[in-house]
Parts: sequence; C-alpha cells; structure tokens
Amino acid sequence: MISVAIVDAETPGNVGTIARAMKNFGLEELLLVDPPELDRDGEAYGFAGQAREDILPNAREVDFEYLVENYHTVGTTAITNEDARSHVRYPFRTPREMADSLDGVAGDTCLVFGRERVGLTNEEMAALDEVCSIPASADYPVLNLGQAATIVLYEFRTLTVEETQLPDPTHDRAPDDQIEGLHEQFGAFLEAIDHPEEKRGKARRLWRRLLGRAHPTDREVVTLRGIFRRARQRAER
Amino acid sequence: MISVAIVDAETPGNVGTIARAMKNFGLEELLLVDPPELDRDGEAYGFAGQAREDILPNAREVDFEYLVENYHTVGTTAITNEDARSHVRYPFRTPREMADSLDGVAGDTCLVFGRERVGLTNEEMAALDEVCSIPASADYPVLNLGQAATIVLYEFRTLTVEETQLPDPTHDRAPDDQIEGLHEQFGAFLEAIDHPEEKRGKARRLWRRLLGRAHPTDREVVTLRGIFRRARQRAER
Repeated sequence: MISVAIVDAETPGNVGTIARAMKNFGLEELLLVDPPELDRDGEAYGFAGQAREDILPNAREVDFEYLVENYHTVGTTAITNEDARSHVRYPFRTPREMADSLDGVAGDTCLVFGRERVGLTNEEMAALDEVCSIPASADYPVLNLGQAATIVLYEFRTLTVEETQLPDPTHDRAPDDQIEGLHEQFGAFLEAIDHPEEKRGKARRLWRRLLGRAHPTDREVVTLRGIFRRARQRAER
Repeated sequence: MISVAIVDAETPGNVGTIARAMKNFGLEELLLVDPPELDRDGEAYGFAGQAREDILPNAREVDFEYLVENYHTVGTTAITNEDARSHVRYPFRTPREMADSLDGVAGDTCLVFGRERVGLTNEEMAALDEVCSIPASADYPVLNLGQAATIVLYEFRTLTVEETQLPDPTHDRAPDDQIEGLHEQFGAFLEAIDHPEEKRGKARRLWRRLLGRAHPTDREVVTLRGIFRRARQRAER
C-alpha cells in the first residue's frame, strides 16, 4: 500500500489539497506529523473536495519515528545534492522513476512531504529510505507543497488507481477499409471539381499524409465521406 | 511557444497557483478571460511565489475569441465522451500524450483551463482544437483547477523547461572494477568471520544480486569496502 505523510505543515489548506489529490489518485491513508489545527469549517476541509468525507477525518496523527519504523519511506525534496559525495539527498529518483521502481514491490511505502518553506530537514531526510525530486525549471524549482504532492501522487497513479475515468482509447481509429473508402471518395471529389489532373496525385498524397497523422475516428471518416460524396454529386450536376 | 489561458476563474488563489506552476515549469504567457479581481495583496499574488514578479503582473486580459483566432488551442476537461459518437470532448489525449504529440511542432499553442466548478462549457470546447484529460480515479476524477493545471504544466515541461535543477544522474553507478573489488572484499570478509564454507557461495550471490539492483554509487562502494576491510582485519586479529 502507498500512504502519505505530511510533516509539520503550517497551513491547513495544503493538507486539504493533498487529501484531495490522494482521493483523485486512489490513495487512502494520510499520516500527519505535528499537523496544524484542522477545523471542519476551515481551509483543510474546504480544499479537500470529496476527501473531506473519508481521508481527512480518518487521518492519523503520528510521530516521525513511526514512519521510519513502519514504512519504506520516500522523502520528497526540491533540492538534491550535486553528486555522490553526500547521501542525504542523493541518489534521487524522479516521481516517475520512483513509481516505476516500486512497481511489483510488495510492502508498505510512505511518501513523506515536508514543511511549506523549508521542506524536510537534513536530519529527517537522513532517516528516510529513498529521495524523490520533481524535475522543474532550474530558475525556480521550488514548488508549493500542495502542488508538489499533487504531481507525485499523479505519477504514482500507476500503482494506486485501479480504473481511471477515461475510456480506453485503444481502438479509436476507423477501420482501414473505411479510411481507404474516404481516400477514394476524395479522389472522385477532386475529379468532379476539375482539380487540375496533373496535381491530383500530389493532392491525394498530401491528404493521405494529413489523415495518416490524425488517426481519424469512425465518425470522422463517415462524416467526411458523406461531405465529399455530396460535394461530388453537386459538382457533377 | 506554449501559453496558458484561464477562462472565468472564480477564485484569485487558483490564478496564483497556476502562475506559480507556470514559473516552475518554464512558461511565461498567461491570458485571462473574465478574470476575478487580482489584488496585489490578495490570494492570487499570495499563492504565486516568484511568479508574482513577472507572470502575474504581465498577464493579459483577452476574450475567448482571441484564443481561438491566435492559437492552436488545447481544452482541458475531467469529463470526456465515452466514444467517437460525439466530438465535443473526443478524441482526447492525456497530458503526456499531448506533450509528446506537440514535440517538434512549430507554432503557438495555448492550454485552456476552465471554471472551478463546471470547467469549460460544451460550446467553448467545440471551438478548441484538441481535448486533454488527466487520468485519475474513476471514483473521483474531478481535480481542483489549480492542481489540474499543475499536472498539465508538469507534463509539458519537456517542451518548456530548458534546464532542470536536477543533476544529470546518467553516470552515477560506481565503475565495475570497484564493484568487483567490493565483491572480493565481501568474500574475504565472509571467510574471516568464519561464515560456514558451504554457505559462502550462496551468500556472495545474494549480495551480488542485491547490489546489482541497487546500482551503488562510487561513494557507497568505497565506504562499504572500507567497512568490510576493517571488519575482516578485526576478525583476523
């Protein structure tokens, strides 16, 4: 199971934002170390969306040692070490690499997020098992706590989301014989509108390449065939 | 260039959150359609981090038509159509697929984000060129506006971030001869501590596999060699 811990957050709003992202990406267990007051009428619940119903009220207050003792811990940081001379924030993995590396590993993992301004201290990082860092602009790599957690949880969705809301787009492209029919229709259309004969081959190749890149759906092909058929008929009158 | 537009946002805080994510991921141009009041002492500037210095004060107020006429527009939505019978929210691409598909395409693109509660209307979506949707839990796929934009901009970083803050981890693993030296050291160590002779081969294979998975750094190998050398010497005394 993948859990989330927030260490010493200052603003309830960020706790709510993280709870919402957990709900959006299929996580359930939220652990809080030294949390701010989470008022039911305050920003934590206000920002949590549907996570106000379960994740937030079920969040457990624990101490830092509890995380270290009970989980494979992943510390998150914007700042990594330059190289292998220090091991506090090195080696690091990006969220995507981290999710990939944990795929197929049984056991409880906890993603640990630190304070708004200073993140996790070196002492805290040293006690955690792995280091995770989000690639961002070198000019301004420091993300807001809630936004950083949202990205990490989004990348972990391959481990935590069983089914997404998106229909499987695997078989969207129209059958090839329908697409070929459209190409024929387009050729007949060019003829009917008297597109110069010496240019028709080139126009048909251009059209084939354009459609080839666009992977047209069944509906698109049917509609376009109808349009070109009608255009040809009108031109031939 | 990749720009960002926010249509009819209600809460200044979300505008600030999006501006910050833009700065984190190397984008510059923010366009606002019917924005809320953005007070310099309010939440928009409060949530914007360093984007309060440039992106937010340089944001331009435009109308929706301006986006359609001047950009290749990508509408974002949590809700897609089930299949190809409707083209308002279909076909869709995930943010990662969308970024990949725009890689190498010259021309201005605008990522268009909608209102907090209802997103972009069907009429607005119909006027946009492509549809982007974030895969999330089927149970609760509706992300907060600021969090959704953060994820999309994170995925677009391959097109917008020239250099990240993360050191290039390509050559982290210690040289193979050093790792072999560690394996020899470990074997000598097993001998010195009188680990049962018939179990040594298995223990060495287990150790080799463990290190093989962990890709140890130079520093890790040097430190471990030192530790095993000292342990052997102590055991041999």
